[in-house]
Order: sequence, then C-alpha cells, then structure tokens
Amino acid sequence: MRLTRRYRFSASHRLHVEALGLEENRRLFGKCNNPYGHGHDYVLELTLAGSPDETGQVANRDKLDGFVAERVLRRLDHRNLNADVSELASIPPTTENLASAIQTMLKKDWPFAARLDRIRISETGRNIFELDS
Amino acid sequence: MRLTRRYRFSASHRLHVEALGLEENRRLFGKCNNPYGHGHDYVLELTLAGSPDETGQVANRDKLDGFVAERVLRRLDHRNLNADVSELASIPPTTENLASAIQTMLKKDWPFAARLDRIRISETGRNIFELDS
Amino acid sequence: MRLTRRYRFSASHRLHVEALGLEENRRLFGKCNNPYGHGHDYVLELTLAGSPDETGQVANRDKLDGFVAERVLRRLDHRNLNADVSELASIPPTTENLASAIQTMLKKDWPFAARLDRIRISETGRNIFELDS
Amino acid sequence: MRLTRRYRFSASHRLHVEALGLEENRRLFGKCNNPYGHGHDYVLELTLAGSPDETGQVANRDKLDGFVAERVLRRLDHRNLNADVSELASIPPTTENLASAIQTMLKKDWPFAARLDRIRISETGRNIFELDS
Amino acid sequence: MRLTRRYRFSASHRLHVEALGLEENRRLFGKCNNPYGHGHDYVLELTLAGSPDETGQVANRDKLDGFVAERVLRRLDHRNLNADVSELASIPPTTENLASAIQTMLKKDWPFAARLDRIRISETGRNIFELDS
Amino acid sequence: MRLTRRYRFSASHRLHVEALGLEENRRLFGKCNNPYGHGHDYVLELTLAGSPDETGQVANRDKLDGFVAERVLRRLDHRNLNADVSELASIPPTTENLASAIQTMLKKDWPFAARLDRIRISETGRNIFELDS
Repeated sequence: MRLTRRYRFSASHRLHVEALGLEENRRLFGKCNNPYGHGHDYVLELTLAGSPDETGQVANRDKLDGFVAERVLRRLDHRNLNADVSELASIPPTTENLASAIQTMLKKDWPFAARLDRIRISETGRNIFELDS
Repeated sequence: MRLTRRYRFSASHRLHVEALGLEENRRLFGKCNNPYGHGHDYVLELTLAGSPDETGQVANRDKLDGFVAERVLRRLDHRNLNADVSELASIPPTTENLASAIQTMLKKDWPFAARLDRIRISETGRNIFELDS
Repeated sequence: MRLTRRYRFSASHRLHVEALGLEENRRLFGKCNNPYGHGHDYVLELTLAGSPDETGQVANRDKLDGFVAERVLRRLDHRNLNADVSELASIPPTTENLASAIQTMLKKDWPFAARLDRIRISETGRNIFELDS
Repeated sequence: MRLTRRYRFSASHRLHVEALGLEENRRLFGKCNNPYGHGHDYVLELTLAGSPDETGQVANRDKLDGFVAERVLRRLDHRNLNADVSELASIPPTTENLASAIQTMLKKDWPFAARLDRIRISETGRNIFELDS
Repeated sequence: MRLTRRYRFSASHRLHVEALGLEENRRLFGKCNNPYGHGHDYVLELTLAGSPDETGQVANRDKLDGFVAERVLRRLDHRNLNADVSELASIPPTTENLASAIQTMLKKDWPFAARLDRIRISETGRNIFELDS
Repeated sequence: MRLTRRYRFSASHRLHVEALGLEENRRLFGKCNNPYGHGHDYVLELTLAGSPDETGQVANRDKLDGFVAERVLRRLDHRNLNADVSELASIPPTTENLASAIQTMLKKDWPFAARLDRIRISETGRNIFELDS
C-alpha cells in the first residue's frame, strides 16, 4: 500500500553554472538564466510504502506533516533556492537537483515505519520530476 | 499497455477504533474522529494491464463501467462507509482500508482478459492511496 | 479590484425535509437522501472587493485566513452539517443553504475595509454555488 | 459574448515597502518579505467582450497571442518583478499591483474591435485577482 | 443564488467559411482549417439564477440533467459539428457560434423556475467562452 | 531520476474496423463509431529516465520540445487520426493504438542520453493510457 501526500511551496531561483561564461549559460538555460531570477509554485508529492497499522493508516498524517514542515517546507517555502539553500549553493538549482536535495533532507532520521518510496515535484504545470528512494 | 479509467463517488465516514477509548481515538485521528462524521468526494482510478484486442482496446469501456458500477459504485456512492459497507464494519474506514475493500469487491469474478493492475483513490485533493494487484 | 482566496473543508450531510414522508424525500433527493448520509470535499472561494492599500493588498492574507478559520472552517471542517451546524438544523443542508449560512457567519462583525463581494462553493467537481453579497 | 484566453508565466518577487523598516515589513508581509525573494507560476486570463465577426470569432487567437506576448509575457516571464519591471519599481509587487501594471501594458494601443473586459491572475492555486476594464 | 452545473462532451469540427477561398480560409483559421477536421473535449457549464425552493435547491439536479441530455448532449456528444448539427451547417462552427447554438437549444421550452443566467464553454484548457442569457 | 514533460494536441477520429459490418462496429464502439467522427483534447506526457548532466538536467527542455514538435505534434495536432496519420490508416485509431504510434514516432533516431521510459496519453479527463518503453 502506498500513501502519497501533496505539499506546496513557492520559491525563486536562477539557473546558472558558475564555471561557465555568460554566453554559455545563456545558451544552456535560455530565459531560466535571466540575471535577477524567476520563480515557481512547486507541488511536492511524497509517497510512503508500507502496511496499514491498527489505526488503518500507512502513516499518521499529522506526524508526517510536522516532519515535512520542519525538514523541507521551512527551508524552501518563500525562499531563493540559490541563496537560501546550502545544498544547492554550488550546483545549479534545477528541479532535478532540488529533488535530490529534498531526498537528502527527508532521509536523515526518517521516523516512520513506512519507507519513503518516491519524491515527485512539479513546476509550471508542465514538468514533473520523480526520484525513487 | 495500461488503461486507467477514472470514477467518482461521495461518501461519509468516521475514523474510530471501537476497542480504544474516546481520548485515544481523538489523539489518533484528530478531527477525523468527530462523532457525527464527515465526508469526501473520492476519485477512484482503476488501471488495467493487457494487450489491445482487435478493436484496439485493452478493455471495452462500457463493459468496464457496468462492472464497476455494479460491484463498487452502487455500494459506496452516497453511502456512509461505517454503516453501509459490511467490509468496513469492524475496521476503521480509512482510505487505506477502503482501497483494500474495493480490491476485494473487484477481484471476485473479474471478467476481463486484461488484469487489474492498480487501484488508486484520492480524497481532499491532498491524499492519494495506491494498491497494486 | 477583487481578491478571491480559496479554502477547503470536508463535511457530511443528508438531504431530508422532516415535514415530508420517506417516499417523498426519496423522490426529491434520490441517493442524497440515503439514511446514514454521505459527504463531500467542499471548495470555498471568498471574493473581496476593494482598493489595494499602501502595502499593495486588498486585504491582509493572514488576517483573512484567521477570520475564516474562526468563523467558518472551525465550525464546518470534518463536521456533519445536519448535526453540528445550528444554522442548518431545521432546513435541508443543501449547498445552496450552506452558502447562505456561510454568508451569515462571515458578515457578522466583518473586520475588513474591503467588502465581501461573493461566496462560491463547489462540491463533487460538478456543482458550483454562488451568492453575491 | 466573452472570450477568455489563458496564459502562463513564471516570475520572482519580494514584497517590501522601502519607506518602512525591516520589522514593519516583516510584520506586514511575513515570509513574502524574505530578503532573497521567492516566486510563483502565474496564470493570466484575459477576457475580451464583443460580437463574433464573420469568421465566428470574438478575436483572432493568433493575433491576440502575438499582442500579449509582445506587451506582457516578454516583459514578465522568467523575470524578477522588483528588478525587471519598471512599473513595479517603486511599489510593492503584489499580485494586485501586478494586475494593474498588466492592465496598463495591454490598454496602450489596444488593437482589437472587442474590448478588454477583465484581467484575472492567480498564483499558488489559492489566490485569484480580478480587475475589470 | 446561482447554481452552475458542469457537463462534458467530445466533438470534432473544421473551421471554414464556404464563401471564402482555400487560401483565405487557411490564413484566417490556420491549422483549425485542416481539411479532415480535428476535435476537442468541451466542458459546458450552465448557470441558473433563482431562489432555493422548499427543498433548498435552485433547481432539481436530475431534472436539469435530463433536460440538458435531451436538448444538448444527445445532439453534440461524439458528433461532428459541421456535419451533424443543423444550427451550424451554414456558419463556421467556432466555439463562439457553438455557444449561441446551445443557448438556442436550451431556451426553447425552458422548464425551470430559475432562469438560465449564463452559458460557459471551454476547450483545450486555454479558451473559455461565455454568453449571458 | 525521471523527467516528465506535458504536451497537448487536439485531434478527431472515428472508431471503426473496416472488416466488420456497420452493426458490429456500432455494437463494439457505440457513439465512438458515429460516421462523421468526433474529437478530443489529448494530453501527452513523456517520461525520460536518466542522470542529470553537469547542467543539472535529465534532458534539455528546448531540445526535447523541438524533437517532440517535429516528430509528434506536427503530425497529430489539429489532425484527423483516420485520414492524416499513416500509422493508423489500417487499424482503429483508439488511444491505445495512438500511444503505440507515438512510441514508434519517438523511438526512431531518439537523440537524448536519457532513455524514453514511458508514454502517457489522456483524453476526456477520464481515460489514461500508458506504455512503457
């Protein structure tokens, strides 16, 4: 049995690789490389896999929400991914790299019997990124 | 090839474990334990896996709709899950347990060449539950 | 300038007019009259009309959320509309009557410079109810 | 007859009033005041009112798209509203003020027989802003 | 009080004005003029305005569904708008003209106490058409 | 890491097997067999699986969009699947067969390091078709 719970956060970023020149960055990332950045409303879906306990739940929703708020949303919501998130300080804050950073944030001291099965993030309504755990 | 078809139904329930006291139930389920119950608009997605037949279809949609209406929707739509659904009479009607009950309802005398691959239910727009068959 | 902010709540109800017999109720409301009730995930949209203040806002979102939580969501979310909401105790808890009850809850001591322009509730993804203020 | 056409753009911003101190800004805007900004995926809906011409259209869609791209999307998509949009340089870039700025951008040399009836912007999936023209 | 109810239908069409030449049609309608036609999943929303009756409803949903099925959906769903709908035989089947045709279909012998307030059709997820009655 | 990108196209079709008689076709496909066809707004989701490169991306979005436009959208958008798509000329253009045709269009000269993992098409908001690669 898998439980997926949906969260939302809003953040800004600029796609840029420091080691490359301005023109190469512009060629690689197009308007995502605009100097002052842009932003998205991200939808984060966490999937947990396990067996329902005696309360009939794969995981307690309140406890899950508290853990995600403390480890992920507090650090990402209404933040600038380049400036505010240390895990993304030296790599371009693409949503691919953001997904990996969120996986690291969640896996440390994961407190649930059900395992983290999948992380899914979408932005702009057109792009979805998935990472199996 | 997998075909997923989406159905909707509305039902009410109260999350409660008879064997536990009022306070423990309140602690476990929060406002989902409110005495007079609450409800949801459930979205049910059934995934069938198989090869398209000579009509180019994994399964005939009319026949599938008829089977799901008779086995599932007739019993759940506009019902109270605690009072009206025998499979949930002695266990808390969480969506996890509801997913298992629907799986049982569908697997009995499954009449399609394609196999039932996955059951997916969402409620409140935030929670999704999946069960592989 | 109009600001619309979206809220969600889940509730159960049974459509029934006490003064009418069982058969007449069944004829009028169909499966919505099922004895043990059913439920919905309601989406509530409140529209405020006014001019942005010096902060560039029609109304402060945190203050609006606090008011709506205290007056509306605390009373409706995860509740049974027949049993738990006094405004609906003697009339059928259709979404039309629910919209009027919410309007009454909000208009008492309305604390915002912007006026309440419209209440909009949808359920089942197919029905939307609007009430101008 | 009204035609509404939907566009999307992604931008970043920081809500901040220069004339006020840091604490007052923090109190007024909460996490929207975070120093390095955040962002949204905005959905912009333009409503035109008029009579269908002999081609059966209120306005030619290609021509409308071209005008909106040149006047609005080129200036806002993948931009920072504080740094890149002159109309918002001296006022907080709330979505209310953004809606007014878009109205100004569109009304200058409006080339369609149908009139611009309404501008509607939503962000975060919870907030919608409307401005009648 | 306004009640909006949502219906869906799928149809095909080709945008073409018989009186104009091939090149002019191609210039006016672009790929919508492709000779063999294309199609859409249309979402139709009907808004009724009135006072709730003693059952707490602006209009009975089953009766409304029956009327819409008989007058509109039976004639449009899974049809070709150019070939199958007499009201659109001599004018281009744009969604603007389709909205007017649906208004005519509904207004004849309208059987409800609540009046038909608005017709709203959307296609492709980007275009919405509204007609007040 | 999987990247899913969403595309949209509109097309018409008629479900019909040439080798079978009119009545048998009518029985098999119901209203989908209407002689003049009908249509849908299709949503196509392509999933690529791979490792992010030094730009932090599983695949360059602009390059992916160009490839999909040239191989798929140019051939399907605003087309009649029976008349305009050679891959579907001799088999019924069900969405199952359409998914297989799209897979063939994409796999020829696939130019990305990431592999094509899954094709997903939905129509009418109720039916979803998936094909693993």
